[in-house]
Amino acid sequence: MISLDNIYSAHKRIKPFIHNTAVLTSARINVLSGASLFFKCENFQKSGSFKIRGAANTILQLKKPELKEGIVTASSGNHGAAVSSIATKLGYSSTIVMPRNTAKVKVENVLRNGGNIIWCEPDQASRDETLKDILSNTNKALVHPYDDDRIIAGQATVVLELLEQETDLDIIIVPVSGGGLLSGSLSTSKQIKKKIKVYGAEPYGADDAYRSLISGKIEDNVITDTICDGLRAKLGLKTFPIIKENIDSIIRVRDKDIINAMRLSWECLKIIMEPSCAITLAVIFKNKSLFKNKKVGLVISGGNVDLGDLPWKSENVTQ
Amino acid sequence: MISLDNIYSAHKRIKPFIHNTAVLTSARINVLSGASLFFKCENFQKSGSFKIRGAANTILQLKKPELKEGIVTASSGNHGAAVSSIATKLGYSSTIVMPRNTAKVKVENVLRNGGNIIWCEPDQASRDETLKDILSNTNKALVHPYDDDRIIAGQATVVLELLEQETDLDIIIVPVSGGGLLSGSLSTSKQIKKKIKVYGAEPYGADDAYRSLISGKIEDNVITDTICDGLRAKLGLKTFPIIKENIDSIIRVRDKDIINAMRLSWECLKIIMEPSCAITLAVIFKNKSLFKNKKVGLVISGGNVDLGDLPWKSENVTQ
Repeated sequence: MISLDNIYSAHKRIKPFIHNTAVLTSARINVLSGASLFFKCENFQKSGSFKIRGAANTILQLKKPELKEGIVTASSGNHGAAVSSIATKLGYSSTIVMPRNTAKVKVENVLRNGGNIIWCEPDQASRDETLKDILSNTNKALVHPYDDDRIIAGQATVVLELLEQETDLDIIIVPVSGGGLLSGSLSTSKQIKKKIKVYGAEPYGADDAYRSLISGKIEDNVITDTICDGLRAKLGLKTFPIIKENIDSIIRVRDKDIINAMRLSWECLKIIMEPSCAITLAVIFKNKSLFKNKKVGLVISGGNVDLGDLPWKSENVTQ
Repeated sequence: MISLDNIYSAHKRIKPFIHNTAVLTSARINVLSGASLFFKCENFQKSGSFKIRGAANTILQLKKPELKEGIVTASSGNHGAAVSSIATKLGYSSTIVMPRNTAKVKVENVLRNGGNIIWCEPDQASRDETLKDILSNTNKALVHPYDDDRIIAGQATVVLELLEQETDLDIIIVPVSGGGLLSGSLSTSKQIKKKIKVYGAEPYGADDAYRSLISGKIEDNVITDTICDGLRAKLGLKTFPIIKENIDSIIRVRDKDIINAMRLSWECLKIIMEPSCAITLAVIFKNKSLFKNKKVGLVISGGNVDLGDLPWKSENVTQ
């Protein structure tokens, strides 16, 4: 695990670059779910997701010589927006390797933040190779999207704030992709209050973390087939051991249930959350007995959604 | 105007029934608008809009005998949801006269809150007649949607909170329909800090308030043609004089500009706001020079939107 000292230091370091985001509740969702839910709204975070925390914590620890040729990373979206935002703010250039099928809104975020995009094919091999090429041919500094202690310590500050805002939680649910947010959340939660259960939420169409826990080694996603565009990466060498040793369970959900939860959350909370975090609410609705009468924190990791391409159909209404 | 004493009493009276809603900002919207904008988020309010404030303040002052046969009102949506919510909470029955073309989500809100619906045609005459029939044939207590000092005092508490949260505003923009929210906002603002300018925001397709200020008497909307389903009523006998004497200006906006502002606000703030309040942001974008470098409070009055019937088209994206 990342030490609490490192997590507190990260929080202090990144404070000027982040919001301490609100925790929202909905009386109606509580009635429907039979539990008391607390939504930690990182969709309101700068750059539109929690990724700014890890990116800021890492870039602020890089030394001047490392930064001379700028920063490079690979990202299907929110990490790219975060890295380009922090880099531009600090006066460094940034290059983001992005799969060609990245959601339009996430591409626009990187460009608006002043990042340069280099396209790759939408699979891990092409992403890795493109990034490797850039690292061999330049002296750009790599800011990995998740498999780095500084990234994990940054992401760990989400739950640090949540535990200060809601002191009485029974359970925390966190989406899992490469595992930066989940291993960070586990590091914070299990060291501050061991008895809080922490569940990872993962789509069936990219369930590498679920399978990795069973096999005991990092499994690939050969094909990813899920609306959760932020949850398609596989676990990393640093994140997997933390998750393996500390997680209470990884719970999988189907896309249709994620879409239903997403729409319900928009209607009740009046906030825009991505499928990749609405999945946490879907976990509850598909496993109600597990959460009955519990106080549950949900990490709402981001709100970058293509509003012109929503996953539900238009309906004829009486207007 | 409503006295400050009455407004403070209203706030104290309704506190157990409302949220003190958050004020949000967006760095990106500030850059795009050239002003510093503060969004008072009544879309996060109980029942999904500010209407709960006036409804609670009125119903809590009714006497037991008046309430024996329950409460009645006419509403195209948010006021109906508010009245039915408070009535049910206090153990009274409620009857809401609703136009047949009311947005589906607003009908569902009333039903879920335990209100009974009586349908009328979508014009003021049918609405007035249906309500009059009910009042003649029963002893139900009327809770008017806006033309009542208790309603105005309740709605006035939105800006009371806003002025406590942001102490340094130059301008406040408020949507105008029947004028309850606007006359309440004027009562608070002009008595607490006279130099703050207060503008009403009104769609071209229902610009009775704009025309009423010119003619000096309450004008009708013969036809209403606007996406702002919450802004179709005409001014009232109590609200008009307060607005006439205190307003700095009513600014009209076209529906296409309202839709653009609504979508931009969703993208940047990650919150769901109705067209009827996104209009306040449209006012700024269509009159940028007026707001340049000013600190502006925008009353985001509600977030009850049919998510299956959004006012922008789906686009083909690269996903």
